Amino acid sequence: MSVLLQIDFPFAGPFGDEMTAGFRDLAATINDEPGFIWKVWTEHAGRQEAGGIYLFTDEANAQAYLHKHTQRLQGFGVSGIQAKIFQVNDTLSVLNNAQLG
Amino acid sequence: MSVLLQIDFPFAGPFGDEMTAGFRDLAATINDEPGFIWKVWTEHAGRQEAGGIYLFTDEANAQAYLHKHTQRLQGFGVSGIQAKIFQVNDTLSVLNNAQLG
Repeated sequence: MSVLLQIDFPFAGPFGDEMTAGFRDLAATINDEPGFIWKVWTEHAGRQEAGGIYLFTDEANAQAYLHKHTQRLQGFGVSGIQAKIFQVNDTLSVLNNAQLG
Repeated sequence: MSVLLQIDFPFAGPFGDEMTAGFRDLAATINDEPGFIWKVWTEHAGRQEAGGIYLFTDEANAQAYLHKHTQRLQGFGVSGIQAKIFQVNDTLSVLNNAQLG
């Protein structure tokens, strides 16, 4: 059963294409994180927020990444991070077209 | 650019296989919602929470579904619903193996 990590936080930008350019190198490194499966990058310029939805193979790797990412965000001066880890109900998710593997 | 809806709320169960059995019929109907692409079903028995991460084609359909789903949850007696809608950064998400279409 895979594990989902949802994170969002106040973010002053960049958004959109500038976000893509600024974080492309970081994104490439995330593919190498232990147990990482996929990430959806989320952003909302109007609310000045950003975040991510991650799928990991197991809870220990999700917790380890959350710890690492929280420290990195705090290093960028980000506070007010909201994060939750959930188990994934695989059967219902596959029924609703989610890609889990 | 697709749109992501994240929802979680206090939930007394059922979890796991019983959740699958109890919500299979509801899940099937979600595939017919306008603009719906996929949903990951999330649950955490220890915290007594559940939720979902949804991808929609556009913000109007995500907002319409959030309104409908909030009313349904409230009809089940659920309160304390946390929900946010974000734009998806497609390029970074595809780089991190996310399925967006």
